[in-house]
Amino acid sequence: MTTHEPFDAPAVIAAKRDRHRLTDAQIDWVVDAYTRGVVAPEQMSALAMAILLNGMDRDEISRWTGAMIASGERMDFSSLSRPTADKHSTGGVGDKITLPLAPLVAACGVAVPQLSGRGLGHTGGTLDKLESIPGWRAALSNEEMLAQLDDVGAVICAAGSGLAPADKKLYALRDVTGTVEAIPLIASSIMSKKIAEGTGALVLDVKVGSGAFMKDEARARELAETMVALGKDAGVTTVALLTDMSTPLGLTAGNALEVRESVEVLAGGGPSDVVDLTLALAREMLAAAGRGDVDPADALADGRAMDAWRRMITAQDGDPDAPLPTARETHVVTAQADGVLTSLDAFAVGIAAWRLGAGRSRPGEDVQAGAGVELHAKPGDEVRAGAPLMTLHTDTPERFERALEALDGAAEVGSGPFVPRDVVLGRVE
Amino acid sequence: MTTHEPFDAPAVIAAKRDRHRLTDAQIDWVVDAYTRGVVAPEQMSALAMAILLNGMDRDEISRWTGAMIASGERMDFSSLSRPTADKHSTGGVGDKITLPLAPLVAACGVAVPQLSGRGLGHTGGTLDKLESIPGWRAALSNEEMLAQLDDVGAVICAAGSGLAPADKKLYALRDVTGTVEAIPLIASSIMSKKIAEGTGALVLDVKVGSGAFMKDEARARELAETMVALGKDAGVTTVALLTDMSTPLGLTAGNALEVRESVEVLAGGGPSDVVDLTLALAREMLAAAGRGDVDPADALADGRAMDAWRRMITAQDGDPDAPLPTARETHVVTAQADGVLTSLDAFAVGIAAWRLGAGRSRPGEDVQAGAGVELHAKPGDEVRAGAPLMTLHTDTPERFERALEALDGAAEVGSGPFVPRDVVLGRVE
Repeated sequence: MTTHEPFDAPAVIAAKRDRHRLTDAQIDWVVDAYTRGVVAPEQMSALAMAILLNGMDRDEISRWTGAMIASGERMDFSSLSRPTADKHSTGGVGDKITLPLAPLVAACGVAVPQLSGRGLGHTGGTLDKLESIPGWRAALSNEEMLAQLDDVGAVICAAGSGLAPADKKLYALRDVTGTVEAIPLIASSIMSKKIAEGTGALVLDVKVGSGAFMKDEARARELAETMVALGKDAGVTTVALLTDMSTPLGLTAGNALEVRESVEVLAGGGPSDVVDLTLALAREMLAAAGRGDVDPADALADGRAMDAWRRMITAQDGDPDAPLPTARETHVVTAQADGVLTSLDAFAVGIAAWRLGAGRSRPGEDVQAGAGVELHAKPGDEVRAGAPLMTLHTDTPERFERALEALDGAAEVGSGPFVPRDVVLGRVE
Repeated sequence: MTTHEPFDAPAVIAAKRDRHRLTDAQIDWVVDAYTRGVVAPEQMSALAMAILLNGMDRDEISRWTGAMIASGERMDFSSLSRPTADKHSTGGVGDKITLPLAPLVAACGVAVPQLSGRGLGHTGGTLDKLESIPGWRAALSNEEMLAQLDDVGAVICAAGSGLAPADKKLYALRDVTGTVEAIPLIASSIMSKKIAEGTGALVLDVKVGSGAFMKDEARARELAETMVALGKDAGVTTVALLTDMSTPLGLTAGNALEVRESVEVLAGGGPSDVVDLTLALAREMLAAAGRGDVDPADALADGRAMDAWRRMITAQDGDPDAPLPTARETHVVTAQADGVLTSLDAFAVGIAAWRLGAGRSRPGEDVQAGAGVELHAKPGDEVRAGAPLMTLHTDTPERFERALEALDGAAEVGSGPFVPRDVVLGRVE
């Protein structure tokens, strides 16, 4: 066999299959060779399944992350006059926190370079939400991004294809091969992009519950600990909050609907869970960036956060004063009985919003700006039979039926005592 | 997502990943859809790794085997006047048993339809061995095969592409994805071809030891039991012998070298381990085909087996009287000390023969007819320092160095008591 490759893919796969540690050289090679196309997709997917079932230790995951970073460019914000901090959420229903958070933190003197993605499946994408603002554009050059960070202090834009291309290729493969749910691969995927992005500090919002990727707290904590360790290994100050995703965040799930609610928060109002989580994450980002002395609640109260939002949207050609799109059709779901709303399932609401047109089934599909679910009650609220529980929004009313199917049994009204759950469930540092 | 497929590949993969049983419908679909190209190679390799690590139960393996059989044609030997029996070996160094065995069993009144393969790696292929006979051809049409079975009673030829094409495609995938070593997949691969081939009875020679695919007896027994169960489920009388592969079978490993030794056995001579195993397997085949009353030793002693061999070779255009090819160069390895040869490692000898040119590294490569290793002593024999231990044969003398590297430490000469090991270690029925 004539080859100049230092390793043989089946032997590397067999090592992990047989529960051995992968060596640094094996990891560097297999990630690079996969990116080059020398390791075939069917070889990488078998390795991914072996990693999913047999695990990797901290050193292996750290090396794997480094190899993915090395597959592409790294950004550098050291020329900025301000420290940088970024936030990543593992994704939840109604999770619009990035929208008020980035301008809020920027208003407090820490720059936020937020490279985001589009939604796929039942959780929305930050870029999809912002694109409901007339004129707003997601694609920025590196120079535009840097200039906006210097000027406004906050930028939310599409990640360029130059960051961790190995991760992009591997993520698409994992998506079709049942190998998404591997903590070493989830952690290295998220952290390779965030570390390559060049942020100085990073706060992770790891969601737990029915609407989250991680349904149970032990797995979410393991993921959080793995990512915090990876950040530390790479010299990025990293903190994670474990937060509740058993019920949607706030009162909206959808694109324009969530922008509207975010603007309410920036105006000093908005649902208390969204406000609380935005402030909790802002405090973590400021502290991690060395500005723990600043209280973000002030910037929310005095309008500085709203000013930063308007400048951030305007800098990307969006019109912060333009009316947001609304859906053509609505359908109201009412409560079946009098009582207390004891639960409202996040996953069901996420699926309903997705089916109404807020999300996509395949990369590249269009989403409806106005589609989604608006809640009129949250767990703990009293409801009366016949009163509105939620309003479904869509441009295509034939979608109501499947959305209602998803919502069947999602809201429970009872008489028993209701124990409110904190939004922030834990912290990993 | 618009699709008319009843299942979604990632969901089937996830089921096995999460240690669930695959349903009959999932198995039928995934094997068929993979054969049709709807399930992609990277999906099947992830599933294969999940099967390797999480296993399949007997019903799943049986269904999987059936789905592979259903992917192609089935042969039918019910028109023959004789019962049929076939043998399959999991592969060993110097394992030329098929060559004397097929004509021997045919000489005893049971037809042997032996569809064989070519070698890859350190164990030789039966077709490669027979192709060292001038004129002999491996490819027969189904009609030629049936006619030869009717006339001679024995045929050894290449398996057509119509039998279990799903297995062919899956085997090639497993080979490059580190998923060969899964007992459910090994067992279903072997048995799907043998059942589709239409033999009435089947004897399996499951090798154990350094030169075998299965290095330890527990795994070999598990494989044997799995295959015997699959045969039973399919209505094929199936028996397995577990046989020793810690040291090469006989005194030769190579193509023409092994044909020469096989002819010695058919002439009533040959090494005792080869004769013993040939007779043991012949007795099992005859008994499984309902002819347990016939003693194959008689047919070996009185020349009927040799007659059948000559007719079998001649029927496929081979000349049984033509001189066999010999290698251009030889190199003699001598004993380092006086004593008893306590071990001679099968794997090392297999690798040496392969490197000398007897085997191939990639499908389609040519092999050298004369290359291989000839042994002058077997474990238990007394040797003297300086006396020949083995002779290496090749047409390309630059290969000696790498072959000698493989043999470094392979032969141990000692003074302690030597405990001979039986060739047949166990039986599974």
